[in-house]
Amino acid sequence: MRILVTNDDGILADGIRILAQDLVQLGEVRVVAPDRERSATGHAITVLRPLRIENIEFPDSRIRAWAVDGTPSDCVKLAIEDLLEWKPDVVVSGVNRGPNLGTDVLYSGTVSAAIEGAIYGIPSVAMSVAAFDKCNYSMASEFGANVVSMVAKMRLPPKTLLNVNVPSVEKRDLAGVAITRLGARVWKDVFDKRIDPRGRTYYWMAGSVEEHDDDLDIDSVAVRHNMISITPIHLDLTKHDFIEELKTWKFQK
Amino acid sequence: MRILVTNDDGILADGIRILAQDLVQLGEVRVVAPDRERSATGHAITVLRPLRIENIEFPDSRIRAWAVDGTPSDCVKLAIEDLLEWKPDVVVSGVNRGPNLGTDVLYSGTVSAAIEGAIYGIPSVAMSVAAFDKCNYSMASEFGANVVSMVAKMRLPPKTLLNVNVPSVEKRDLAGVAITRLGARVWKDVFDKRIDPRGRTYYWMAGSVEEHDDDLDIDSVAVRHNMISITPIHLDLTKHDFIEELKTWKFQK
Repeated sequence: MRILVTNDDGILADGIRILAQDLVQLGEVRVVAPDRERSATGHAITVLRPLRIENIEFPDSRIRAWAVDGTPSDCVKLAIEDLLEWKPDVVVSGVNRGPNLGTDVLYSGTVSAAIEGAIYGIPSVAMSVAAFDKCNYSMASEFGANVVSMVAKMRLPPKTLLNVNVPSVEKRDLAGVAITRLGARVWKDVFDKRIDPRGRTYYWMAGSVEEHDDDLDIDSVAVRHNMISITPIHLDLTKHDFIEELKTWKFQK
Repeated sequence: MRILVTNDDGILADGIRILAQDLVQLGEVRVVAPDRERSATGHAITVLRPLRIENIEFPDSRIRAWAVDGTPSDCVKLAIEDLLEWKPDVVVSGVNRGPNLGTDVLYSGTVSAAIEGAIYGIPSVAMSVAAFDKCNYSMASEFGANVVSMVAKMRLPPKTLLNVNVPSVEKRDLAGVAITRLGARVWKDVFDKRIDPRGRTYYWMAGSVEEHDDDLDIDSVAVRHNMISITPIHLDLTKHDFIEELKTWKFQK
């Protein structure tokens, strides 16, 4: 199996290092990842300046790796279009530090890299640990290798990827695996407004999530109950069931 | 009517200036837009550094405006969370220089700003002129004002926005208005690989679109036929029709 690994925490992050090492048991692994943290970059690509790449040595010499001074989507495009000698069988993004749940997947560089893989028609997986501290990357990475094997064997529908969030608990405390849908993520106190030493205002994006959902079919609820959440995600943003009604609106040309 | 206007070409762009001026006929207009071009930023938000704002004077003093050193999504969040004295009735993004069609809407800062509006539960519209040169912003802007009136009157379903692409032709050459779905956009020769004066490689994101679609229900096809394309877009990336099948997969915990 030929596997492309990327992330949005940067090529030096623990999560991608552990994941690449686990995946090398399954086949050939190439890492093409941002040279630094690129969190919350959404599906950004870099068009206003050129991109540069750098060869990176991983401890395991079977893993070839490149750092890119761009976004996760840039990395997947550059890997497939130029850097790799083969088209990957699977694209894996992660293991991300922090959850990627509900509406927030729209902001996620981790998920956008997997979306990019799916755009290329390659089965793709986004892996996250749903915690920011004391992340249990090993368990998430091990489960990620399992998901990659499954995806390669079972096949996903076209333009579909899997978004996987693993609770950061000890393995014995895992409550199971839930197939979920994306929930809503309502944030409050989104900005922390401060005054700098020169008297000027600045804003930090901050805030906390208000959890209103309690259905175990919802990704964030499953994770809160110590379950691994797997959500199938597609790329078609068209709201098909509104097209006929919209055709009745009288737009003036 | 209370209208928030933003874009991804920056607050100095012609497209947003003309649009704000047309919308002021409909109600109160506030502009909160990036301080410079932010094309292809996708749904990025700025979390690794703070944001700053600056008051900007528009020629029409009825239009209050702020520039933000962030992405289009940052602008919408900051406007609603802090800058505006009211919650907007409509969020309008544009008029963008260049089309936002098919799969490419995933990369679009213009569309992501409207998605952000929809996340806040506000009817939202993304407006683009489907050309990079000699853009007919006036016609697109005028049509945009029409769409805004319609959206305010007719209501959109929850978490739905309209993505509007206007061909850059003379008004007499417009062939009508088409309600469409997003097509696929297949790019070839994505990177232009060059060598700098010091012998190092760099990559420009480039490429051209291969048009395979020819169904007038598809956004890019409608625009190619000189029609204004309006696509309803939703935010739910869940692939609901694959959940039951995925539940049959035997993941190892």
